[in-house]
Amino acid sequence: MEASTYLQPITRTEQGLDPQDWSELRQLGHRMVDDMIDHLATIAQRPVWQPIPSEVRQRFRTSPPVDGEGAEKAYEDFRRYVLPYAEGNLHPRFWAWVIGAGSGLGMLADMLAAGINPNLGSGDHAPTLVERQVIDWMKQALGFPAESSGLLVTGASMANIIGLAVARHAKAGINVKEDGLFPAPARMMFYGSSETHNSIIKGLQLLGFGKQSFCPIGAGTDFKINIAALQDAISRHKHDGLKPLCVIGNAGTVNTGAVDDLAGLADLCAEHGLWFHVDGAIGAPLAISDSLRPMLRGMERADSLAFDLHKWMQMPYDVGCVLVRDESQHREAFSEAAGYLSRMPRGLCSGERWLSDYGPELSRGFRALKVWMCLKEHGLRKYGELFEQNIEQARYLAGLVESSEELELVARGELNIICLRYRGRVRDEQSLNALNRELLMRLQEQGIAAPSVAILGGKFALRVSICNHRSRSEDFDLFVREALRIGREIEKSAA
Amino acid sequence: MEASTYLQPITRTEQGLDPQDWSELRQLGHRMVDDMIDHLATIAQRPVWQPIPSEVRQRFRTSPPVDGEGAEKAYEDFRRYVLPYAEGNLHPRFWAWVIGAGSGLGMLADMLAAGINPNLGSGDHAPTLVERQVIDWMKQALGFPAESSGLLVTGASMANIIGLAVARHAKAGINVKEDGLFPAPARMMFYGSSETHNSIIKGLQLLGFGKQSFCPIGAGTDFKINIAALQDAISRHKHDGLKPLCVIGNAGTVNTGAVDDLAGLADLCAEHGLWFHVDGAIGAPLAISDSLRPMLRGMERADSLAFDLHKWMQMPYDVGCVLVRDESQHREAFSEAAGYLSRMPRGLCSGERWLSDYGPELSRGFRALKVWMCLKEHGLRKYGELFEQNIEQARYLAGLVESSEELELVARGELNIICLRYRGRVRDEQSLNALNRELLMRLQEQGIAAPSVAILGGKFALRVSICNHRSRSEDFDLFVREALRIGREIEKSAA
Repeated sequence: MEASTYLQPITRTEQGLDPQDWSELRQLGHRMVDDMIDHLATIAQRPVWQPIPSEVRQRFRTSPPVDGEGAEKAYEDFRRYVLPYAEGNLHPRFWAWVIGAGSGLGMLADMLAAGINPNLGSGDHAPTLVERQVIDWMKQALGFPAESSGLLVTGASMANIIGLAVARHAKAGINVKEDGLFPAPARMMFYGSSETHNSIIKGLQLLGFGKQSFCPIGAGTDFKINIAALQDAISRHKHDGLKPLCVIGNAGTVNTGAVDDLAGLADLCAEHGLWFHVDGAIGAPLAISDSLRPMLRGMERADSLAFDLHKWMQMPYDVGCVLVRDESQHREAFSEAAGYLSRMPRGLCSGERWLSDYGPELSRGFRALKVWMCLKEHGLRKYGELFEQNIEQARYLAGLVESSEELELVARGELNIICLRYRGRVRDEQSLNALNRELLMRLQEQGIAAPSVAILGGKFALRVSICNHRSRSEDFDLFVREALRIGREIEKSAA
Repeated sequence: MEASTYLQPITRTEQGLDPQDWSELRQLGHRMVDDMIDHLATIAQRPVWQPIPSEVRQRFRTSPPVDGEGAEKAYEDFRRYVLPYAEGNLHPRFWAWVIGAGSGLGMLADMLAAGINPNLGSGDHAPTLVERQVIDWMKQALGFPAESSGLLVTGASMANIIGLAVARHAKAGINVKEDGLFPAPARMMFYGSSETHNSIIKGLQLLGFGKQSFCPIGAGTDFKINIAALQDAISRHKHDGLKPLCVIGNAGTVNTGAVDDLAGLADLCAEHGLWFHVDGAIGAPLAISDSLRPMLRGMERADSLAFDLHKWMQMPYDVGCVLVRDESQHREAFSEAAGYLSRMPRGLCSGERWLSDYGPELSRGFRALKVWMCLKEHGLRKYGELFEQNIEQARYLAGLVESSEELELVARGELNIICLRYRGRVRDEQSLNALNRELLMRLQEQGIAAPSVAILGGKFALRVSICNHRSRSEDFDLFVREALRIGREIEKSAA
């Protein structure tokens, strides 16, 4: 090879993001490990949550850094302005929404994942085998057949979207991938209980169906779908010329943790030729426990199942999973060939089926690694025991509430969610709502405990959702004691 | 509070996922930091990629662990079976697809993020301020107005989906959130050059439009959209009763890195009242560099802009960003109220606008932290210099190819992508394609370099996409030398 007139040598001094000498970054890494392990080990001694002071808020309103200040300074900013004002979900008395508490090895696994930094959308490499194995483990744990398919995603919102998109592909009766919904002769309908999570609504909106395509079916006093009412709605819609397409079963609703009669829904879907999707964001992993599995009977018959791993499975954010019974329907719904994604028989670009063929994302991080490592660390049995423990703790808290004349148990699910309020001697509903709003905020502001909100039949309630492996019975004792103290305080000052 | 008959004490011995004694996990964390820093510091000495031996593949086909084996064992499995068989994108001679190389602090930042483990979908806490600041920085860096909005997502696939969904919300002329696409009087049309990435097609399929709603406009020999042809298509479609809705401009196409005439597209969209979306997955961040910004003129006029941060910005996977000019359109397209997401004036549940109001996901990990910390570490200027360096390296490689009689420069973009093939003395196209396929695989299998595939006008080419901060000029010298050696070898054995 001879030099030609075309060849321009590189004149600049080439540089990169790596340090000349790695020892400073290595030391910083060690310091971070020590700080974070200390943080986790002493979490119970800190407030659950604390308000962000305005001078700290101000720190987040500066211009983008033009010149670098180095890794040390970046870490110092994290330590001073971020770490103390976190969401609080590592703490034993965090019970807001449905959010897991993470774990030490989960944290370290995400460092390893970002360190080797693969894109799981393409190519033949071991990280893709890790994700496939995690999916296989989930199939086995939740009773899905070996030939079914799946994908790890950011959470149940995305998992629901994928499940509903495959439902559309399989059942629309038109070629949606090619033509979209435009040639649809009739509105397609999806059904779920009125307790169905709004990620299903948001998913249907994203997919172009609109909210009108979701028919909420009244839930009984047990917050479960009324199957007779569902049957009626489907018949009425067929008669009216609409196209029933899919039923969404809930395995653990967000308000009360209710589990629909999934076997009943599976039967109904089989009878009507509908797609059966289960939103098991919260509850699906309970099938790991021998004693809880019967409650989920029928879930294993779903056509698609969405669930989270960063909630009750305690994996660091974000990771959820979708399983689809029919692998080819799943793949067909999402695969789309392109020259630059050509597959080779050997080498990096080999592998007939890439994980990006099963979802909308071509760029996919290595969220599988934390799941793989934490399951290896603890084993499935341990997670099952922790579910049972949280459910027992919810029962215990319900008992504490019921045994106090000043508190009211507003709702109690079968699982891990308790909705309660302070009553004291207050009798009118408006004052009670105002009092409990204030109570919730003070519990959080004083760093005592972090429930969130449920509004049930017009009642403002403190929603305690226990999917926290750090909670112990004394945390519930303390919570009730403090809720009473603050409740009385507010009642007194309002009198 | 007195005990009542309802109160059941907890009888089981409560447990959690935390160790009794944190010292073992702490030591393991230190070992991981050392191993990963060593791995990064010595990456150039290892093969870019190596095939996974079948006995290693077999390791990923075992049943789920029922009993835990501990953190040490989980790490050992990672070290033995995952780390050596990674995708290869940390290596200086990885140029496959468009994948960044990560960085040391990026890796450590993901540990911190998983350690404090917030859900950025809800609540008032510092991690949400970090994400908002990163979005603000991106707006400023890319010329978007301060009042625009944005969101971090898994990558440009999701960012494109969000941009196109807001386009639909703003321009469909029907209430898509409520009614979906069913009442649409006419097919809605999206336009982009024939070089548009398939994530746009996949996005339109997900959104219920179907592939027929994408009208590919011929690209010229410069691979840029032909604006006259676009104008014609829009007029023809209007005449035919279709509804033109959105034009997609490319800021760096996947095949050749071509940048459309974005100012021309912005003018055309303004004239026709169309939404202007820019897919800047690869190229948008180039606006950081003063010398490259002019090439992207008009991008700052987009209604929505999608780009990646794990590609040329070198952040660990996965993180991309969408910016939307009209904050209220963006929020309206995605927000959906629910009792359990009620906002309070104070405390954890405060904050009028949550990040989950701007996208389909309620669960959102702390992917902002690595971006925030790496930008603080290096400053924007450094990234701009690295873009310029990669573009100069692509020019250098093109020169190397052109100065060899045995190689052919199949395509050369303005930016960082070079498509080439070995020719030797082979003259028929079929043999050339077979030879270059084999060449690509051997380069990968021998761990020398990792280009990927481009098929351009029927020619199988090695696609070298340089967005790697570790590549140096000698890496391109070595690549060309070895491509020639292996090419001659294959040519000889076929003769």
